[in-house]
This record gives sequence, structure tokens and C-alpha cells, in this order.
Amino acid sequence: MRTLPAESPVRVACIQMEPRVGALHDNIADSVARIDAAAAQGAKLMVLPELTSSGYVFATRDEAFALAEEIPHGPACTAWMAAAKRHGAWIVAGLAERVGPRLYNAAVLVGPDGHIGTFRKMHLWAAENLFFEPGDLGFPVYATPIGRIGMLICYDGWFPEAWRLCALQGADIVCVPTNWVPIPGQDPAQPAMANVLAMGAAHVNSLFVACADRVGTERGQPFLGSSLICAHTGWPVAGPASRTEPETLIADLNLSLARRARNWNDFNQILRDRRTDHYDAMLGTGVKPGWF
Amino acid sequence: MRTLPAESPVRVACIQMEPRVGALHDNIADSVARIDAAAAQGAKLMVLPELTSSGYVFATRDEAFALAEEIPHGPACTAWMAAAKRHGAWIVAGLAERVGPRLYNAAVLVGPDGHIGTFRKMHLWAAENLFFEPGDLGFPVYATPIGRIGMLICYDGWFPEAWRLCALQGADIVCVPTNWVPIPGQDPAQPAMANVLAMGAAHVNSLFVACADRVGTERGQPFLGSSLICAHTGWPVAGPASRTEPETLIADLNLSLARRARNWNDFNQILRDRRTDHYDAMLGTGVKPGWF
Repeated sequence: MRTLPAESPVRVACIQMEPRVGALHDNIADSVARIDAAAAQGAKLMVLPELTSSGYVFATRDEAFALAEEIPHGPACTAWMAAAKRHGAWIVAGLAERVGPRLYNAAVLVGPDGHIGTFRKMHLWAAENLFFEPGDLGFPVYATPIGRIGMLICYDGWFPEAWRLCALQGADIVCVPTNWVPIPGQDPAQPAMANVLAMGAAHVNSLFVACADRVGTERGQPFLGSSLICAHTGWPVAGPASRTEPETLIADLNLSLARRARNWNDFNQILRDRRTDHYDAMLGTGVKPGWF
Repeated sequence: MRTLPAESPVRVACIQMEPRVGALHDNIADSVARIDAAAAQGAKLMVLPELTSSGYVFATRDEAFALAEEIPHGPACTAWMAAAKRHGAWIVAGLAERVGPRLYNAAVLVGPDGHIGTFRKMHLWAAENLFFEPGDLGFPVYATPIGRIGMLICYDGWFPEAWRLCALQGADIVCVPTNWVPIPGQDPAQPAMANVLAMGAAHVNSLFVACADRVGTERGQPFLGSSLICAHTGWPVAGPASRTEPETLIADLNLSLARRARNWNDFNQILRDRRTDHYDAMLGTGVKPGWF
């Protein structure tokens, strides 16, 4: 680790752990112990996995509802707010959010003064569609004293639009709680495609990316680990982490570089070079009806 | 190489070569010799670099104009059409296009029956802005007997919107004539970021990608080589090629997989999962005025 002289140096931790589905209070306690350990190493921004408190593979809707909480007064968010206050730090972590009869696969951003914002996963993967509503908050970016923070969850990262929308709203870093699973065509001998996507997104948007994945196998579903912290150049500065073991990645980032380094030469600024005069078809509802 | 039983098997060649700036007729002859050699190996779709016929680093506007041609009757396009007819093949290749007082950094798609379509680079890199007009044709996708073909040139690949627009118009393969140069933050010990971007774009759009780069150093400007052919899964099926030497990559692709393999499970089709109801800010003119 190298400490950078910079306007906005931040020690970031990505906490890769193994939540157990159903073990709500154990998962929260485990996450807080790892947060405390990262804080003891000086981390000021900590990222935890998707659905850290509940686990991922729900057997029934009853089970999913029982493991969900209202934000910010449920047990997970309350514990993370307390930890953020205790350490004077910021935490992004995933949890099952309940709003009346609806569940969301959500992430909270909390800081020393409490709850700052919530992101609800916009692109639901596979059986998540049986438990959660698709996110309805868009891609919010929150200003904090350490920089502007966006959030995405797992499959959201498969949509370049999602990263771009964070960048266009000024994000310096996108924090990604995730539960990456093997995807079609993944060769185990190659880097995880999820890592490739995070690197590319960091590079073409000139922003930092911090992905915290889980490990283990839950009800037959394996996860990939491979948590990763990318610089604004796209290159990893920490990780990829183990594919199988809990591990906390730590990196010193100078978040101001996201903005400082967008002018690549006399002509090109990566965000301003967009040919928005020709992107209107991006808003179409997808492939033309009848096409594959 | 593995021959796939498939509805649309195509042997694709990416021809990595070293054009010399100003040596128009030598460059064309070199490209045709390499096309003939690839055709002798059975290639039916051949991709050549950006500005194959002219070279890349123009000293003056006079020089650039002298090396440009009208499409399809100039010397490079004429030679490539003849080669395509001779071999019953399709060729995508880059050239400097002249339209009256304007130049474009263009690519042509030609087939056995002649000129099919032209792409004009939409996102100009660095000093290209001194010689070329930005492309004004959008991101056309052309139907051919071997499949639907889109084209991008070099820096276009830094814009996820460009790949997406090809995919949304049904492209099975995007052919990328390129002159990749070192970009900020590139670690020579790591894979070229250009390769990372091609892999990610192929994966999240479920389409094939064939990038043909140049090698060598021209008037002090080094190029990266590393030509690459990616499957619709994102994983390389040929390359990356040498960073320094001419080389022709050949791969047997089943282009029908681009469409067949977009349904990833009971719920997710990668192009139809887009949350277009929340992408409207994609059309903004970039970062908010005053922001970096």
C-alpha cells in the first residue's frame, strides 16, 4: 500500500465474507467484527457484500420477508450506523429492504451522522425476481465529505448504462456490494468476467470501483469471491481477492484523481466526448420487437 | 481451431499489419497479400486495421488529403472489393475517406458483390481532430448472408454506448479496425485495456467482436498490436496477437450463438433486461455544466 499525497485520500476496505442464509444476527455480528478490524487498519470507506445480513438463496417468500428490514431502523442498518459513528467512517452494505408488502435488494450508505442514502438494485438476477421488486430509485450519487459515492449491486454491473449514469452524476467512486455467481461462458482458468467489467467501467468512466463479493456455496449456489478495488484508470489496486475465503482488501485511493484525470490529452475528455447526438436509440425499450 | 456445427459458421480473420504513413500503394498491396493468404486458409470475413491504406500519423492536412479517397471508387476500396469478389468473402477495413472538403476516419464493409456500407469513426482521438470530421452516420449495422455486421473504430470502443447501439440494432458481430495506442495508466505487464473493453462489450451485449490492430511505431507514436477475436461470451477465441509483429488471427465462429445465447436463465435476457425507464439521463450532453 502506498499513501498518496492528495486532496481526497481515502483508505478503502472491501470486506469479502460468507453470510449464511437465515442467520441474520450472526451475519450482522460477523460484518461488524470485520468492519471494526478494517477500521483498526485505518479504513474510512468500507464496502460489504450484497444481502450481507440475510444471505442470498431464499427458499420461500416467507423466509425472504422474515430476513428483510425497514431502513434505517432495522437491525443491520442500525448496527452499521453505530459502527460508522464509532469509527468516523462510511459504510456501503447490502441488505433486504422491506417497504410494506414489497422487498428490495438494497444497499445503504451510512456515515458518522447516520443514514445517507439507499440504492435499490435496478437489474434483478434470476430467482431474485421471485422475491424482490425491481429498483425504483434510479442511480443516485451521494455527496459526502470524502467524495461523491454511487452504488450498484451485482448484475447492475452488467449494464454499462448503470456505471455511466453514476459517472454523469459526478461519482468519484462506485461501491458494489455483490454476490457474483458463475455466468455463462466463464472459464475458471480466466479472471472472473465480473472483474473484467469492473475494470472496463472504471477506465471508460474515470472513476474508482470497489466491489465486495461473498464466498461460499449456499443451497447449491456457488459464489465467486474475487472482490476487487480498481483505480480510475481501470487497473486493480487491490485484489482480486480469494475465490473461496473471506478476506478484506485495503487500498489507499486518491479520489480526486477521478476528476483530475479525465482530460486524457489536448482533445479528449472521456465523459465529454460522448456523441449524445447519436445515442437516442439508447432509450429504446431494447431490441426491436420480434428481433433477437 | 474447432469447427462448430452451426447455422452460421464463419471463419474470421483479423489481419494485424504495419501500414507506413504515405505509402498508399504499398499498404494496399500488403493488405491484399494478407487477405489472399487468409482466404487461402478459408477465411470468409476479414478485418483490417484503422487507416490501413494511409497510415495514421499525418504531418499536415495536405498529407492527409493526399492519402484519402472517395468511397467506393478509390484505390483501397477498389482493391478490397476485387479481393472480396475473388474470394467470395467479406472485408472490413479502415481508410481515410474524402468527401469534397471533408475527411472522415472511415471503415468500409465490402462483399462479393461490392461495397455494402461505410462507418465513419464517431469518437475522434487526439490529433485526429485536426484532420477528420467526426462521424455523421451513427452506428449502422448491415445485414449480410453471413450475419449482421456492425463496425467501430478504435476510440469508439471506449464508449459502451457504441457497442450497445450495435447490439440493439441486431449486430451478431462488431468488426473493429483499430490503431490502439498506449492509454493513461496502461501497465505494460497487464493485458491491454483495449482488450479488456472488447471482452466486456462482447459479454454484456452477447455479440462477437473482431479487433484488427496495427503494430509498429510511426513518427514516434507506438501502437499496441494485441488484436483479438472474442466470442459472444466475452472470452477470447483467438489472440491477443503479438504486441509488435504482423500476425493474422483466425477463428471459427458460430455467429448464430450471439442471438441463441442471450437468454441466460428463466428470467434474464441481457438486452431486454435494460432499465430504459431509468436511462433517460444517458441522453444528457455529458456531465452537468460546471462539473468535472
